[in-house]
Amino acid sequence: MIEELPPNLGEQVAEIAADRSHGASELARRALQIVVTAAREETVEDAGAMRNLLHCLADALIAARPSMAPVYNLMARWREELVQIDEPDLAQIRQQAANSAERIVRQSEQAVAAIGERGAQLVKPGQTIITHSFSSTVLAILEKQRQQQIRVIASESRPLCEGYKLAEQLSAWAIPTTLITDAQLGLFVPEADVALVGADSLLVDGSVVNKAGTYLLALAAQAHDVPFYVCCESFKQRSEDMPPLELETLDPAELGAPGYPYVTVKNIYFEITPAHLITNWIHEQSGT
Amino acid sequence: MIEELPPNLGEQVAEIAADRSHGASELARRALQIVVTAAREETVEDAGAMRNLLHCLADALIAARPSMAPVYNLMARWREELVQIDEPDLAQIRQQAANSAERIVRQSEQAVAAIGERGAQLVKPGQTIITHSFSSTVLAILEKQRQQQIRVIASESRPLCEGYKLAEQLSAWAIPTTLITDAQLGLFVPEADVALVGADSLLVDGSVVNKAGTYLLALAAQAHDVPFYVCCESFKQRSEDMPPLELETLDPAELGAPGYPYVTVKNIYFEITPAHLITNWIHEQSGT
Repeated sequence: MIEELPPNLGEQVAEIAADRSHGASELARRALQIVVTAAREETVEDAGAMRNLLHCLADALIAARPSMAPVYNLMARWREELVQIDEPDLAQIRQQAANSAERIVRQSEQAVAAIGERGAQLVKPGQTIITHSFSSTVLAILEKQRQQQIRVIASESRPLCEGYKLAEQLSAWAIPTTLITDAQLGLFVPEADVALVGADSLLVDGSVVNKAGTYLLALAAQAHDVPFYVCCESFKQRSEDMPPLELETLDPAELGAPGYPYVTVKNIYFEITPAHLITNWIHEQSGT
Repeated sequence: MIEELPPNLGEQVAEIAADRSHGASELARRALQIVVTAAREETVEDAGAMRNLLHCLADALIAARPSMAPVYNLMARWREELVQIDEPDLAQIRQQAANSAERIVRQSEQAVAAIGERGAQLVKPGQTIITHSFSSTVLAILEKQRQQQIRVIASESRPLCEGYKLAEQLSAWAIPTTLITDAQLGLFVPEADVALVGADSLLVDGSVVNKAGTYLLALAAQAHDVPFYVCCESFKQRSEDMPPLELETLDPAELGAPGYPYVTVKNIYFEITPAHLITNWIHEQSGT
């Protein structure tokens, strides 16, 4: 129903769809912020029109990132609250819908902080952590332990190299970081005490959807008895009623490879790492 | 003893040392070609001086690529023949030393062709082959099977992306090729019938030294019951009397990563894949 949205909202949805630099949680929160602003500022005739607009917007935002459970889950939670707002007054609907979305954003941020606390207990002073791609949840853990003489091994994470952004932040915290190609993950796993990754979503069977390369890191970690932890909020879990998982295939041009007639470039962003390779899932309610 | 070499030879040795675009066999043959030209053309006083020069040159070429067994082995084989040239005449020494090196180059080329024949029997018509990095031996196998409706999955092989060169050649042969990031190797292994890689050298215990990323491909192949073959000539075997294996660390600038104060970029080219992950080693004398 994206075609029913006013152009300014359509553009914001398109930005969420095209965003390659933020993780799933961050994008879910950004999606909620779009909802907050729309609830407060969009010009509509009456309460019913606002209700319709917000439902359309939620549908469009969910459809924008089909692989990302948090976008679905946070939007679904917000929509449940929206349905319960039994209010004929436009100003009241605006305020309650916006407040509800803002509360969910805060809960999401608190969940990341809680994982930072819990995850920090997995990392002992002086240890070396290996990670792949960029995860704000992993970053929260590393921030907690930044004074503990930890060291990080970060892969660049082709094609867009989110690993550089991670390295930049770690360097700003004075955490010694070794930056490697994704191909060197197997070579560096033996130097690590623990592997930490984020997740775009968790499947019902306990397997994890994350950036391509995560599975290779998990295989190498298992081969070297390095514990492999997935760190993500509980609302990244996919439920049975969600649309079927779709691994997003993105623009092959991102690789920057030359073109040849018989060559097809593939750029699948996400892959599934099976549950048996995961030592534990660290979430905001997990035991410590 | 590289300092004793005339400048023109020193430069050629430096080119071998800096070469990132050719595999170990090809570089070993190039090293022998340098020897051939030096034997034929270098100005020296007498037979003894030529002998000394050629020994110095062999030492320098071996030292230029410490990870590469073929350079060591082909040079050592040639030097054994050089020692046996019991000839006081300069012109005769020139000719015999050059002929000997040229014969070894031909044997090396014949070995690659023989592996092409043997390896081709591992690849059935219509099958999909996954490979990592660029191997002229793997290329010889694929060339043999180019009319057999095969399909190839090739990783780019960061940082210098030798996979692009492979894709270009396969495309020229009209072999449908899927080009992926190294991080996607685990994602694409299930589509492959067989994994083929070359080797820089083989260790005494049957493990293989090859481009970083090979180990990850081998782990993923094992996890999906995809046979993993190492294809390389027998003179890539390291013997007990060779200098200890040194995994070459190359220029971190090749990654093109931004610089941050607490971040060290690592660019280790080669890694060891253990023997238990290797289904079989295909060499020029292996049974078919």
